[in-house]
Amino acid sequence: MTLSPAAPPTEQQAREERLTEQVVRSFGGCPDPRLAELMTGLVRHLHAYVREVRLTEEEWAAAIGFLTACGHITDDRRREFVMLSDVLGASMQTIAVNDTGCGAATEATVVGPFFLADSPEVPFGGDVSGGAPGEPCWVEGTVTDTAGVPLAGALVEVWEADADGRYDVQYADGRVAARGRLRTDARGRYAFWGLTPVPYPIPHDGPVGRLLAATGRSPMRASHLHFRVGHPECRTLVTHIFVDGDELLGSDAVFGVQDSLVKEFVRQPAGTPGPDGRRLDGSWSKVRFDVVLAPAVGDPR
Amino acid sequence: MTLSPAAPPTEQQAREERLTEQVVRSFGGCPDPRLAELMTGLVRHLHAYVREVRLTEEEWAAAIGFLTACGHITDDRRREFVMLSDVLGASMQTIAVNDTGCGAATEATVVGPFFLADSPEVPFGGDVSGGAPGEPCWVEGTVTDTAGVPLAGALVEVWEADADGRYDVQYADGRVAARGRLRTDARGRYAFWGLTPVPYPIPHDGPVGRLLAATGRSPMRASHLHFRVGHPECRTLVTHIFVDGDELLGSDAVFGVQDSLVKEFVRQPAGTPGPDGRRLDGSWSKVRFDVVLAPAVGDPR
Ligand SMILES: [Fe+2]
Ligand SMILES: [Fe+2]
Repeated sequence: MTLSPAAPPTEQQAREERLTEQVVRSFGGCPDPRLAELMTGLVRHLHAYVREVRLTEEEWAAAIGFLTACGHITDDRRREFVMLSDVLGASMQTIAVNDTGCGAATEATVVGPFFLADSPEVPFGGDVSGGAPGEPCWVEGTVTDTAGVPLAGALVEVWEADADGRYDVQYADGRVAARGRLRTDARGRYAFWGLTPVPYPIPHDGPVGRLLAATGRSPMRASHLHFRVGHPECRTLVTHIFVDGDELLGSDAVFGVQDSLVKEFVRQPAGTPGPDGRRLDGSWSKVRFDVVLAPAVGDPR
Repeated sequence: MTLSPAAPPTEQQAREERLTEQVVRSFGGCPDPRLAELMTGLVRHLHAYVREVRLTEEEWAAAIGFLTACGHITDDRRREFVMLSDVLGASMQTIAVNDTGCGAATEATVVGPFFLADSPEVPFGGDVSGGAPGEPCWVEGTVTDTAGVPLAGALVEVWEADADGRYDVQYADGRVAARGRLRTDARGRYAFWGLTPVPYPIPHDGPVGRLLAATGRSPMRASHLHFRVGHPECRTLVTHIFVDGDELLGSDAVFGVQDSLVKEFVRQPAGTPGPDGRRLDGSWSKVRFDVVLAPAVGDPR
């Protein structure tokens, strides 16, 4: 095959390219090589985007206004830039490029905007619901390394929405509910009572919600329960489990679903006693999630 | 010449590409074709960037924190996202892709973070300094269309830093100074007293300033005087004039310098009366800037 010679750049193209190279050169004195790589790559893609779509000045001003609105709605309990990254798939792409080469380990997914560093500690088999409304769910499993060795004392942090589809931080009353932490026992086992996950919309009363509406996208997330699992010898895992049969599995607003994370939540009829002998008035569900942590490499979190 | 066949994508590459395509497809129901184009282009470049630089999760979190800090420092008088766009050259690239095909018209440059919509009106030859410290500068010129026809009643808005390198909005006392507006006369002429421009740093006590410091870049801008010139029959022009001989012309922090905008500011010794007969105690300068506005096309601003 032969290649036809590329057309020479027009004066306009040359002017646009010169500007990009001028900005790239401005990072020539950056003392941190990784930061220089990050900034020059950002500049090249940002400029290429502006040039490709022929961004108008009105659109530029709208983008500045959008970012400003995201900043103004953000506080300790509302993380609009995390949601923006999530709905653009940038969070999952970051996870994808980092979640490599550990075929045996449990897959990661987005952390989302609702993680809090300090959640209440519960004992083995304890209840993390904190009084939040919802169907009880018994969650149990093991934490092992990729060789199958049980990891004792691993920290298991969990958080989820209540039956109304809201996280505790979305209420104005300062409640702490449907989140907690526990340690695996000597055989690497954990178990707790939580809530059967339900679908919920990501907070859509702000700029990210308006963007989703304007683009014809739904803010709904597939039902899920968040996990963060850490052990000193391993790479910390941030993931979810999803509910087998949920009709939203194919249209999750933040692209977080991985097939390997879809689990069977087995519903138990009212009157069935819990695995720990607990007496329950209504129905409940149970699910098993065995976590496999990758070895700590390079920069263990 | 021959081309060697591209290597087949690895499973990892395929997984990353599938994610990008999944996000692009999520905009398939967008009712606004231009918005769909903007969003899918953004997603493709954002994902390509994350994949190229192999963004770490710590770097992702730092980016979220950076954007949040930009949002929190932003208010009516501080526009951190405008400065971010400016120092990345995205503002100038947006101007470059829009400032096309009007060879005869005056070139545009960045609006910057300090424009205010309502500045004090002054008569022909009036003083816009508002008491701000600085060497007086007589600025005069014409506003014409690209055929050379004088434009009467064109709105000329100007703003600049004072002798200390600060704009009025950077003081906490609410002053309005070194900004103003006037109209061209029947022959398309304007003239006003302002201040001889001096170099100044963009506000660098926030996240954008920290980014510049970390990357070894200077926050200094070449000396300049801002103009916004509008007329109903023409495309509104946002530009600056720069000072011939300024040593910062080659290293402007926001890449705003265009050769055609560098003007000779002619210094007048103390005792020289102004062109309007004004008596001045010290030295002053004068500059001429003839503005040519492009025809209004498509979306006149
Ligand atoms: Fe969630
Ligand atoms: Fe300026």
